Amino acid sequence: MEAELIAWLRPRLADQHPLALGIGDDAALVQLPPPGQCLLTVDMLTDGVDFRLAEASPQRIGRKALAVNLSDMAAMAGSPLAALVGLVLPRTGGLALAQGLYEGLLPLAADYGVSIAGGDTNTWDGPLVLSITLVGTPGPHGPLRRDGARPGDRILVTGDLGGSLLGRHFDFEPRVREALCLAERYQLRAGMDISDGLSLDLSRMAAASGCGARLALARVPISPAAERWARHLADGSTPLEHALADGEDFELLLAASPAEAARMLADQPLGVPLSEIGEFTDGAGLTAVEPNGTLRVLEPRGYQHTSSP
Amino acid sequence: MEAELIAWLRPRLADQHPLALGIGDDAALVQLPPPGQCLLTVDMLTDGVDFRLAEASPQRIGRKALAVNLSDMAAMAGSPLAALVGLVLPRTGGLALAQGLYEGLLPLAADYGVSIAGGDTNTWDGPLVLSITLVGTPGPHGPLRRDGARPGDRILVTGDLGGSLLGRHFDFEPRVREALCLAERYQLRAGMDISDGLSLDLSRMAAASGCGARLALARVPISPAAERWARHLADGSTPLEHALADGEDFELLLAASPAEAARMLADQPLGVPLSEIGEFTDGAGLTAVEPNGTLRVLEPRGYQHTSSP
Repeated sequence: MEAELIAWLRPRLADQHPLALGIGDDAALVQLPPPGQCLLTVDMLTDGVDFRLAEASPQRIGRKALAVNLSDMAAMAGSPLAALVGLVLPRTGGLALAQGLYEGLLPLAADYGVSIAGGDTNTWDGPLVLSITLVGTPGPHGPLRRDGARPGDRILVTGDLGGSLLGRHFDFEPRVREALCLAERYQLRAGMDISDGLSLDLSRMAAASGCGARLALARVPISPAAERWARHLADGSTPLEHALADGEDFELLLAASPAEAARMLADQPLGVPLSEIGEFTDGAGLTAVEPNGTLRVLEPRGYQHTSSP
Repeated sequence: MEAELIAWLRPRLADQHPLALGIGDDAALVQLPPPGQCLLTVDMLTDGVDFRLAEASPQRIGRKALAVNLSDMAAMAGSPLAALVGLVLPRTGGLALAQGLYEGLLPLAADYGVSIAGGDTNTWDGPLVLSITLVGTPGPHGPLRRDGARPGDRILVTGDLGGSLLGRHFDFEPRVREALCLAERYQLRAGMDISDGLSLDLSRMAAASGCGARLALARVPISPAAERWARHLADGSTPLEHALADGEDFELLLAASPAEAARMLADQPLGVPLSEIGEFTDGAGLTAVEPNGTLRVLEPRGYQHTSSP
């Protein structure tokens, strides 16, 4: 099956950036530009957790699997270069499914200059699993880490948040170009992508940086999808709560000094809005600033991988 | 869960070779030695196919998942450098299972100088899946490809073959040091690891190289495990048949010119035997040379990932 898939893939990979050695051998060889640094990230997606094969097309699933990795690369302000595609396919219909996944993945790879360097294709009696490894290079200012925020730094986000289950969790555009643009033009202190919910990911950035964070609730950019999703659920949840906790927004969460943040906000250099939503503080944990100015402790909420001991 | 696992892992990763940026961010950063080339391979292992969690300890499974990747690196005569560990864990007992997997994987990583650069940890209602990505660097003579054999080249293998299900498929030693030693001291034309069975993998090397191959059956090194396995099965299969088709031997399959092969055989520079088992030929496909000199077509047999359309 792997041999058939590789035969089907070869002509479809003809247009990609040349690799020192691509698919078909025991490993791929990628030439990195000087100084030879390599950003590496892997994300695994599983049927029933990250998508439902019964509901989503293979093309959308394949696209998403690469897009979440591109979002991790954006989170480091890195340039994506090559990907390895690992698949565990259900035994029945595996080849057609793999082809569908690649049909979704390949156009996105081409769009971001990502070569498919290799992978691993398996079949079993279980549900579909994808594992994509993405290789990239850091920008001239080095990788954008999540642990560099300092008290007083402003909290910035791209785009708007919440309600991703209405479609964005498949069809989002990873913020690769935006991150590269910002890292080139401004001094960023820290960055990550919002994959598990703003409040949870912000608490992670603050903890990694040894800070607390104060979030101005009135300034959180709420997506129209978050409004629709709250109406649809009709469970008393508010659009703001969805913007704080839904996850899979795949927007950028950034830290910058007050002066640099002011410059970025005045410039608005991206095709998507850039919003300031609070600041990092001494201490630890999240504080919410209510629209009326009241402060309260904000419990981080979002998507957490659950397991029982 | 991922946060707990990372907290448990951090002190255990203290002794590894320093990474430019290791676990805990959206991507890892690895510095490659000049000229900045990076060998990349990924292998996914699944419960029920590559192991049975009900029968094998998490430690043996974790070790195997890294070892098969190290074997791929050996197949390219590369030096392993860093690994990304992707896990999809059953929901119940996930953390303890992940710790067990790492307990098996970390000593092998230390033994081969592999840093754990990062990964992805997920839980679901399905069986255990592991996805390991290994990064390495090619040796001074470049990557050892599988497509460089020429008619007349000798076929060489390390060690002995067959019967791996009796234990070797878990406890094999990847031939990383052997491949580096050979690639440094001799001119190798082609190489790969024997993961799916000698006859199947030899047919792949021959096809990639645009050659046929003639295998001297009397010279195939048959492992004691292949003898025991044939006796145990008592199904009329012979130890030779197991050496030709069992798979998961993880020995090296090599091509070298007659003069270079003679030098390697005379030197026997490895701790394991090096055997010449035939030669590459014009044409295509495999030919077996029977002990009495008779030639017959040899149908490649081995482990093939099966699926139905």
